[in-house]
Amino acid sequence: MAVTAVCPGSFDPVTYGHLDVIRRAAAQFDRLVVACLRNAGKRPLLDVDERLALLEAVVVDLPNVEVAAFDGLLVDFCAERGATVIVKGLRAASDFEYELQMAQMNARLGNVETLFLTTSPVYSFLSSSLVKEVARFGGDVADFVPPIVAERLSRHR
Amino acid sequence: MAVTAVCPGSFDPVTYGHLDVIRRAAAQFDRLVVACLRNAGKRPLLDVDERLALLEAVVVDLPNVEVAAFDGLLVDFCAERGATVIVKGLRAASDFEYELQMAQMNARLGNVETLFLTTSPVYSFLSSSLVKEVARFGGDVADFVPPIVAERLSRHR
Amino acid sequence: MAVTAVCPGSFDPVTYGHLDVIRRAAAQFDRLVVACLRNAGKRPLLDVDERLALLEAVVVDLPNVEVAAFDGLLVDFCAERGATVIVKGLRAASDFEYELQMAQMNARLGNVETLFLTTSPVYSFLSSSLVKEVARFGGDVADFVPPIVAERLSRHR
Amino acid sequence: MAVTAVCPGSFDPVTYGHLDVIRRAAAQFDRLVVACLRNAGKRPLLDVDERLALLEAVVVDLPNVEVAAFDGLLVDFCAERGATVIVKGLRAASDFEYELQMAQMNARLGNVETLFLTTSPVYSFLSSSLVKEVARFGGDVADFVPPIVAERLSRHR
Amino acid sequence: MAVTAVCPGSFDPVTYGHLDVIRRAAAQFDRLVVACLRNAGKRPLLDVDERLALLEAVVVDLPNVEVAAFDGLLVDFCAERGATVIVKGLRAASDFEYELQMAQMNARLGNVETLFLTTSPVYSFLSSSLVKEVARFGGDVADFVPPIVAERLSRHR
Amino acid sequence: MAVTAVCPGSFDPVTYGHLDVIRRAAAQFDRLVVACLRNAGKRPLLDVDERLALLEAVVVDLPNVEVAAFDGLLVDFCAERGATVIVKGLRAASDFEYELQMAQMNARLGNVETLFLTTSPVYSFLSSSLVKEVARFGGDVADFVPPIVAERLSRHR
Repeated sequence: MAVTAVCPGSFDPVTYGHLDVIRRAAAQFDRLVVACLRNAGKRPLLDVDERLALLEAVVVDLPNVEVAAFDGLLVDFCAERGATVIVKGLRAASDFEYELQMAQMNARLGNVETLFLTTSPVYSFLSSSLVKEVARFGGDVADFVPPIVAERLSRHR
Repeated sequence: MAVTAVCPGSFDPVTYGHLDVIRRAAAQFDRLVVACLRNAGKRPLLDVDERLALLEAVVVDLPNVEVAAFDGLLVDFCAERGATVIVKGLRAASDFEYELQMAQMNARLGNVETLFLTTSPVYSFLSSSLVKEVARFGGDVADFVPPIVAERLSRHR
Repeated sequence: MAVTAVCPGSFDPVTYGHLDVIRRAAAQFDRLVVACLRNAGKRPLLDVDERLALLEAVVVDLPNVEVAAFDGLLVDFCAERGATVIVKGLRAASDFEYELQMAQMNARLGNVETLFLTTSPVYSFLSSSLVKEVARFGGDVADFVPPIVAERLSRHR
Repeated sequence: MAVTAVCPGSFDPVTYGHLDVIRRAAAQFDRLVVACLRNAGKRPLLDVDERLALLEAVVVDLPNVEVAAFDGLLVDFCAERGATVIVKGLRAASDFEYELQMAQMNARLGNVETLFLTTSPVYSFLSSSLVKEVARFGGDVADFVPPIVAERLSRHR
Repeated sequence: MAVTAVCPGSFDPVTYGHLDVIRRAAAQFDRLVVACLRNAGKRPLLDVDERLALLEAVVVDLPNVEVAAFDGLLVDFCAERGATVIVKGLRAASDFEYELQMAQMNARLGNVETLFLTTSPVYSFLSSSLVKEVARFGGDVADFVPPIVAERLSRHR
Repeated sequence: MAVTAVCPGSFDPVTYGHLDVIRRAAAQFDRLVVACLRNAGKRPLLDVDERLALLEAVVVDLPNVEVAAFDGLLVDFCAERGATVIVKGLRAASDFEYELQMAQMNARLGNVETLFLTTSPVYSFLSSSLVKEVARFGGDVADFVPPIVAERLSRHR
């Protein structure tokens, strides 16, 4: 059984929390496509090309991981890529209820299964928006994002 | 990548909710071991041999699924069976917090990954204990468990 | 439309929180049956006759409220009493998930609708088991239960 | 006791989940007013006249249901219509906390009782915003909204 | 041990719920700085000077409480003020998950401890945004905010 | 202001999670009494003297921390010890709802304030009962409890 999984997100920017989920998912599936949402809702800090470039840089050592932009329905993207699984990280009970709703909708729309990993405790408090806020005020984000991302954020202050 | 997954539970008795998770998990992994907890805590209704027999009967059409009893640490059972994945169903946010705790403990103890499926909405309200209570008072459980299980429960009234 | 509603519980003992829900439910339905679970699981403090007597005493001023014991399936009790509605109080999100499960099961078993009231904030922290623990150690429960209940609890120290 | 209940929402657009709550509420109360929030916060997809027209169309077979627009305080609308009950559907624990807050505020402001129904499991994952997103990208929404609503959404792609 | 604590918020406007937390925190710490977020995200109703003036007015009887505006990282503000503790009120489980995330981030960024009080039940349903909505439509907010705040809100209708 | 705080629990056995909360609480208050519940409900693994001895051993380097057994109402114990604060760790949203209830009850019973710390992420999955289960089956608990506790548990297998 050769399974392709899709790991979707805004990745604005990618954090060590995302990377933990990506690494662990890459160990479970034959092929993992990290799907970066093109129009990340409410004005992203980084444009999609920057977000993709950072993702490419941080997964470079993971041979079965690809990075791609997407818009439209996630189930359509999965079909295009031959993926039968969506894989997501869960941090907290409140994440869960939204993700449950999305998983059940996607199962109805596209016959695609959603599998969840739990975020490692050490990254459970991390989110892209918290990291951006810390960076904006000059806080040190070295513990939260890879060096290439920290460097990129420092140019936005 | 040939992955063996373990789907643990008390299965006292197996319900359509469990069966939904088992079927969907069986579609995602090369081999699935349904692991039935031998000493299901607080006095199970059915002894482990009955629970195993019912499980065997209801997964008979799933060629890559095996059924086994276990006790001790789940990570030890996974190691014995060559499983690198634990797969569980999640119904509600309150399930999630307990399962998160278990998943993180098992990751620490045994280098085994836990993947979660969300229970199909139509079975989200089902639990073995509710089914047992309905059966005990002569309610109709035909919508909740396979016929062989319903028949078995009817003998316990 | 003359609606009979059932308000089930263990009432071991009835608290001001229960009474708040009973009063408000009595104002919404033509007839309200307070249904006291005969075998309140794990060894009740008060036997069912005492629990019923206290309930009778505290609802004496509510002309459309009756008190009755029940066991078996709640949907069967509703059918016997001609009730089409179950009414329950909700204190917290964790109550909700269990009650959601019960409501969906009862809708499947008996074509009975469950309606929820939210507990008044001032009673949101009350539970029978907390009250019993306070009373057991001689704490003052006058703010939590009607005088007749407080008096009865004082005999159990 | 002739009770008028109000079922408020944005209904942008009405889904089968809303319709399930409306039908079940209509069976419990003598008269049900579906109250459509005029200025649905953050730019609705459909203007209020369209939302009202769709609501009218889908409740046409429910003789004790009326549809009306409202703005201002919900308790004032209830007073105008002679309603003593607000009825809402609950899908998940996270819905509950917000609704608890609103119910307690409305009880303080207007002496109006809020009663909750739980959404049927089969619709528990539905929300107007998910439906709009699916429709926007050309997904099939026939399982989620009545045909007249699906047809209307198809014109917005 | 002379401890300075910081109680942060938008206070747009300050409610009796905030005041309850401030009073109780003031009783626990030697010095309490109420820190009013200068740019309260999405267009505050009151500008920061008004919010500060109202805060000053309502804490005038609490000798160990100061009021100050802040922006930037809260941990930097704590360092400036010599505060080692952040104190916050918790109303509901959903508050908790966000606050947990913030507390853990602040512990990493600034070696500052976050301590939580639970909001008194009687104020558990209050929020600045609900109060503003009630006031906007001419509802009576006398039970929710101090008279000086109610008077100020009445000018915004 | 010289504040005495009480940190209650069953401590059956004390874990690194408890110790993290105790250490951080000891840094915030002048004097901290770790209060070990004498009759830890449902048959503790270790009797109260063993639990106290282990607690004494692991807090030996914290000069402002004392260890004591208690039974009865926690507010009475606080009064005896001159404590005005109860301090507890919170791991998850589900902890929160129970603790909120206890905090509000204790505020009513004894005019004592409850302050919460959030458990460090790295210990968020730890509980005494999980540790006991791991130890019972011969799993390695060195990452979860201090060496003296691990040694003690190893004698219970």
